[in-house]
Amino acid sequence: MFGYRGKALRLLKSLEIEVGDRIRVEKGDRTYEGILMPRSELGDPNHVVIKLPNGYNLGVKITKETKITKIEKGKLPKLGLPPLEVKRDPAKPDVTILGTGGTVACRIDYRTGAVYPAFTPQEIYSAVPELAGLANIEVMEVCNVLSENMTSQLWARIGRAVAKKLNAGADGVVVAHGTDTMGYTAAALSFMLKGLFRPVVLVGSQRSSDRPSSDAALNLISAVAVAGKSDIAEVCVVMHGSTDDDFCLIHRGTKVRKCHTSRRDTFQTINDIPIGMVRNGEVTTFRQDYNRARPEGKVELDAKFEPKVALVKVFPNIKGDIIDSLLDEGYKGIVLEGTGLGHAPRMLYKSIRRAVKLGVPVVMTSQCIWGRVDMKVYSTGRELLSLGVIPGEDMLPETAYVKLMWLLGHDLSQEEISSLMRTNISGEISPTSRPDVFPTPPVLRTLVGESRL
Amino acid sequence: MFGYRGKALRLLKSLEIEVGDRIRVEKGDRTYEGILMPRSELGDPNHVVIKLPNGYNLGVKITKETKITKIEKGKLPKLGLPPLEVKRDPAKPDVTILGTGGTVACRIDYRTGAVYPAFTPQEIYSAVPELAGLANIEVMEVCNVLSENMTSQLWARIGRAVAKKLNAGADGVVVAHGTDTMGYTAAALSFMLKGLFRPVVLVGSQRSSDRPSSDAALNLISAVAVAGKSDIAEVCVVMHGSTDDDFCLIHRGTKVRKCHTSRRDTFQTINDIPIGMVRNGEVTTFRQDYNRARPEGKVELDAKFEPKVALVKVFPNIKGDIIDSLLDEGYKGIVLEGTGLGHAPRMLYKSIRRAVKLGVPVVMTSQCIWGRVDMKVYSTGRELLSLGVIPGEDMLPETAYVKLMWLLGHDLSQEEISSLMRTNISGEISPTSRPDVFPTPPVLRTLVGESRL
Repeated sequence: MFGYRGKALRLLKSLEIEVGDRIRVEKGDRTYEGILMPRSELGDPNHVVIKLPNGYNLGVKITKETKITKIEKGKLPKLGLPPLEVKRDPAKPDVTILGTGGTVACRIDYRTGAVYPAFTPQEIYSAVPELAGLANIEVMEVCNVLSENMTSQLWARIGRAVAKKLNAGADGVVVAHGTDTMGYTAAALSFMLKGLFRPVVLVGSQRSSDRPSSDAALNLISAVAVAGKSDIAEVCVVMHGSTDDDFCLIHRGTKVRKCHTSRRDTFQTINDIPIGMVRNGEVTTFRQDYNRARPEGKVELDAKFEPKVALVKVFPNIKGDIIDSLLDEGYKGIVLEGTGLGHAPRMLYKSIRRAVKLGVPVVMTSQCIWGRVDMKVYSTGRELLSLGVIPGEDMLPETAYVKLMWLLGHDLSQEEISSLMRTNISGEISPTSRPDVFPTPPVLRTLVGESRL
Repeated sequence: MFGYRGKALRLLKSLEIEVGDRIRVEKGDRTYEGILMPRSELGDPNHVVIKLPNGYNLGVKITKETKITKIEKGKLPKLGLPPLEVKRDPAKPDVTILGTGGTVACRIDYRTGAVYPAFTPQEIYSAVPELAGLANIEVMEVCNVLSENMTSQLWARIGRAVAKKLNAGADGVVVAHGTDTMGYTAAALSFMLKGLFRPVVLVGSQRSSDRPSSDAALNLISAVAVAGKSDIAEVCVVMHGSTDDDFCLIHRGTKVRKCHTSRRDTFQTINDIPIGMVRNGEVTTFRQDYNRARPEGKVELDAKFEPKVALVKVFPNIKGDIIDSLLDEGYKGIVLEGTGLGHAPRMLYKSIRRAVKLGVPVVMTSQCIWGRVDMKVYSTGRELLSLGVIPGEDMLPETAYVKLMWLLGHDLSQEEISSLMRTNISGEISPTSRPDVFPTPPVLRTLVGESRL
């Protein structure tokens, strides 16, 4: 039954409890109440998993002292909400929402625990009624994977769907995507969509939209606003700008990174300012240098990626065998996440030299995340440059990885790849570094201020 | 001559220019002036490298149009400053400064370009005269490497020197260390020094102390203040707290990370508040839960590290071959820098299962950097837990890597390692998550505020 086996399955069967039922679990002096959730295929036989009222799942080990009681039979899924009937309004923009399997506008079916995307236009309007006032929504499922399982083939499939919809007349496209690898996919779309003349907006949610504190509604409303009525003809990520439900930021697709495991304002623009913000469905831009939307155009898809590229974090004590193994396995490109201004230990020089000799480009970025690689300051950097390592400027390691995959998908010489890696193609390299974009913890203002007294 | 060869060497010889001389290089409509620097052994024969007045190095390619003129003969190194005569003051604390090869209190010898640490007590006092008022300084060179070349053997050597000095009666020890891998070494010292009863302070500089805008003096003064007169008996990092030369922050050694390639306030305490701050040589603490100094004690060194551990960043499209190669090469432990709440693609499951079967612990951390791994929320996390992956709580990936090396250096069972990785040993795991420690870009306050008008 839904992944339960062994001891747990026997106990649940004997109590006539099914997945989706509300149960009470007592153990020693602790009592938990929640919905019995399904297990993964790999679930061990000694635990039951319940979803607590706060939305989180808890696994409880079954011992002799564990007492389980059924409180309530599982309810039917909420998916059957009466659909809002919405007619196409020719005065409103046409926005396509592409589903990829993220957690935006999803509902958890408590009977089975499965996450179902709300994915007819009616279901989307029912989940977030404000959308009906913003745009005529069309929906299309491109794939259905958790974003950690995203691949370059799926990037290409998403790109194809975006290009098709824009070229067919959509005013903008929203890509609903899991947050884990949203930054990587945003970078991939930024490189592969050429001649973009309308907005392409990635959006997600840090919590399922059935949870009381979900950020999905504001994110989705803001993303549809950018896609439908902004003049930002770029690939961007639109997600919460604070922990309050008050505004979203518009991040450039090549400069954005998930910086917190669980906060709703997890995405930050790195080494630059965001393109703008959305409050109450109104778009404000912070800068002038973005690609403007045009009434007509044609998007061309250039979605060739070399899949055999590795992103390698450098650490003290790292040995050359890590690079050598990649070369032995036929990897075609390596992005190093070096230390500081773009350094790697001497222990790696021999393997890096071998990579360059084999025609495998080695690109240097920094695990500092903020700032710019500068390999001319210290001897290590100069030596790495002499070995042929390509400095990644102020590119995010993640973006450099996607860019190298994309460049290697094309028939380019080593010199062309080296030169293009250092050339801004889609906003991934900022010409200058701003001092005011380095984030600082808000608590410091209080702590340092008070101690001044 | 100092790495010059071929065309560059011939040109310099013909002009009687030596490394250390001030020269002018004209090329087309551009003119540069600076000190001729030595080249690395790998220097190509077509460039000369000069140190510009702003302290940065510039390589200029020699072509037919390049004109070079000698402006001034190289000066002798500044090392010969008249040493300050300072007698030991029994009323002042005794602080040992251990040199490891970082750039604190160093001077660049412009004649050879070599970086010389100012490393007799007299040279240190000459470089930073304020120190004489704070402590009786003793100095000792432990090693001399750029911090990217630090290894677990050198961590042990540093730890040995720290323990020796504290047990011999030093009131505190300062470890001068390059900033690139300072966080890793701080974590290593935090685990290996048991029974710490006095402060151990790592300090460095984002710029050589001979540069006009160096941060070395304030950092060193603040580090010596913490080592000499604070009651913080922990391993900590003391570095600039802002871009102004006004105060330093005291970061816990297991929670600190270099977050910017070049800023002086590059170090941040992650997922927690710093221990305190230093302003004008005065220490203020922000919290009460730090280990207090005691007048007497004995530090025990437990410096066994397993060197065959890898820190592996997860990325979309990653294949199992990366993990399999590590297992084939005999790696004994793997720390994954997963996505989001602690996820890795399904493509890795088979190799992870193989690792666990071989008794190789696999620890999950997050590339988000901020926040906490929670592998019970989504199916991917639950599946990885079932495979035996150890969740790294809110530990930094870098700290988890050092901790796993250290645990594997001891004769522990798989269960003990799994349990200890999830148990706080030296401040590396915070029991709860504070919302006010997640950093935000200061520019956002202006941008979002203005757009409200």
